[in-house]
Amino acid sequence: MDKINESRFERGTRALAEIDGAGGQKVVDSLADIAPDFARYIIEFPFGDIYSRPGLDLRSREIATIAALTALGNATPQLKVHIQAGLNVGLSRDEIVETIMQMAVYAGFPAALNGLFAARDVFQEKHSLAA
Amino acid sequence: MDKINESRFERGTRALAEIDGAGGQKVVDSLADIAPDFARYIIEFPFGDIYSRPGLDLRSREIATIAALTALGNATPQLKVHIQAGLNVGLSRDEIVETIMQMAVYAGFPAALNGLFAARDVFQEKHSLAA
Amino acid sequence: MDKINESRFERGTRALAEIDGAGGQKVVDSLADIAPDFARYIIEFPFGDIYSRPGLDLRSREIATIAALTALGNATPQLKVHIQAGLNVGLSRDEIVETIMQMAVYAGFPAALNGLFAARDVFQEKHSLAA
Amino acid sequence: MDKINESRFERGTRALAEIDGAGGQKVVDSLADIAPDFARYIIEFPFGDIYSRPGLDLRSREIATIAALTALGNATPQLKVHIQAGLNVGLSRDEIVETIMQMAVYAGFPAALNGLFAARDVFQEKHSLAA
Amino acid sequence: MDKINESRFERGTRALAEIDGAGGQKVVDSLADIAPDFARYIIEFPFGDIYSRPGLDLRSREIATIAALTALGNATPQLKVHIQAGLNVGLSRDEIVETIMQMAVYAGFPAALNGLFAARDVFQEKHSLAA
Amino acid sequence: MDKINESRFERGTRALAEIDGAGGQKVVDSLADIAPDFARYIIEFPFGDIYSRPGLDLRSREIATIAALTALGNATPQLKVHIQAGLNVGLSRDEIVETIMQMAVYAGFPAALNGLFAARDVFQEKHSLAA
Repeated sequence: MDKINESRFERGTRALAEIDGAGGQKVVDSLADIAPDFARYIIEFPFGDIYSRPGLDLRSREIATIAALTALGNATPQLKVHIQAGLNVGLSRDEIVETIMQMAVYAGFPAALNGLFAARDVFQEKHSLAA
Repeated sequence: MDKINESRFERGTRALAEIDGAGGQKVVDSLADIAPDFARYIIEFPFGDIYSRPGLDLRSREIATIAALTALGNATPQLKVHIQAGLNVGLSRDEIVETIMQMAVYAGFPAALNGLFAARDVFQEKHSLAA
Repeated sequence: MDKINESRFERGTRALAEIDGAGGQKVVDSLADIAPDFARYIIEFPFGDIYSRPGLDLRSREIATIAALTALGNATPQLKVHIQAGLNVGLSRDEIVETIMQMAVYAGFPAALNGLFAARDVFQEKHSLAA
Repeated sequence: MDKINESRFERGTRALAEIDGAGGQKVVDSLADIAPDFARYIIEFPFGDIYSRPGLDLRSREIATIAALTALGNATPQLKVHIQAGLNVGLSRDEIVETIMQMAVYAGFPAALNGLFAARDVFQEKHSLAA
Repeated sequence: MDKINESRFERGTRALAEIDGAGGQKVVDSLADIAPDFARYIIEFPFGDIYSRPGLDLRSREIATIAALTALGNATPQLKVHIQAGLNVGLSRDEIVETIMQMAVYAGFPAALNGLFAARDVFQEKHSLAA
Repeated sequence: MDKINESRFERGTRALAEIDGAGGQKVVDSLADIAPDFARYIIEFPFGDIYSRPGLDLRSREIATIAALTALGNATPQLKVHIQAGLNVGLSRDEIVETIMQMAVYAGFPAALNGLFAARDVFQEKHSLAA
């Protein structure tokens, strides 16, 4: 990989670590045997390009992502990673729950309900790890 | 309508006016001849119940809504109402554009692209009204 | 076309005429220059096979279709054809409006709202044709 | 909770028990530790407001819900609750299967297939409980 | 079943066996106790009518199906059947992975990611069966 | 912009011109006043990274994109750009029509129908331009 791409890659690696923490690295690792280039793209475009942009703070970015993944309703593993990411960048549990509940208005009650269950799983896992 | 429902209704009416402004009232009016009860539900549940909850500020709530409607991609009129609502509650144009651009990661480039075009329409209309 | 396929085709043609009326024929005609075989498939499978099955009455079938198309939210022309079809097979305007409003619970308020506007268009057009 | 809201809540509680039975109560209970207000909203809006409206009978309402959840394809737990609800309000197994099969036309064969498998699970569980 | 329907049915049975192999037959068998007619429709319409058409080769048809099921993101079991089908009709693992990765552009990174994990499961299962 | 990013940008610019032709440039131009960085991302990631990969030929890539956009059903302008792109990279009208028709199986008849109407629009426009 050449130097400038490393630069996007490095910036993305820092952002991924800051935002998604261990969950992000696990996703990257899981791609090693099936599509390693896709792991690189995840680091470079979403994290190196988008999340690293200055115009919106990371708390707002995670609210946007949690809202969208709850509304779409077909990517539970990624929603869980971003509920954890929301906690990592400073959202409170209440703010995350409010964001998910609001999706009942835009994507229906089942989507919100399944988002809340995803949040419960993440919060409980965190709690039991902390114990 | 009894007094307590008026209370949810009144709280919702205030929230709708504060957030959606003229766009919200237009939606309510447009339902008068087809489903007036649905207009009442819109005021009572999304605005009287959800947007009026204290746990998340209105700026964050509009980021969540703009993100979700961009990602779902099948409700352009409502997305435009909420892009305007975002401006109403204090989001900058840049913050709205950043939120929409980020949706390329979670719902694909076409969804983000169509969201950006909706934002351009809202910003231009505002600009020409202000002139 | 051989005789037995004609039989599915004939059964489908009758069902299409009974359910969708002029709207169905217009869809079939509109495919003549781009995909005539697809027009035949529409007659044979949805109408010749599915709508012709005895286990569920046509009123219930149209409730199911109006609900699904409202919830999916990305096929307004077909939703309008089936709102008209609902009237054709005996649903009242109120029953159609109730079905669409209920979708706010399962697919969000914007989907229900856009479904109600589609119903208003169909009801108004019918009214002005009758005048 | 004030008296009139109790009234929506009470009406919703009755409707939830009549329609969803034990499945509905289980959903409400499961929200106790993550979002108890959302449990209240589920009782008040979908059940207290929508399902309690007079304009459409409960059999038709469950056909609409089963159709929509099959078509959306991203809320299997809720689809199962409503397949059971369909049986509770008097739909036959055949009517439920017909409703789901019809969704192949509007949302594709995989959506219908996964809906049918959800129905088989509900029917088998009911059968083994009855044994 | 009459002779001409048998003909669609027979053509579909051949196409299903050629394309989906054992996975297709398993789907058909799994419908026996819940909706046997739907098994017949799967054979007749998608396989007897669509996949048997001459205008597009089977490799291209499987690319289209893998792309669509990855993008829709709510039918993982069917996506796996068609990843295997892609191998059956001559697509390389690389071509399948490229098709799925491309969906990040049109349906977002989570949809592509979940598609890649489905491919890994299919490739690994094949590998362990071959060992 | 530094040299290496220019390299992704240049590769993407070539791919965009080859694949989407004038339609691609129009999309890029239309972003100039609302989100110029997003225009750059479209060139760099979908075209510079994904479409430029060697593992899948452009004809297959356009089949995948046409299939996915037809199935998702909420991005008609982009679907039209890629139907034209399919013609640009050597797909026949018949191959495009077959790809879209097949989506009836995976995303329902309305999605396929709306895809066919998009194709008709593109083919007619091309025809009238050529006249």
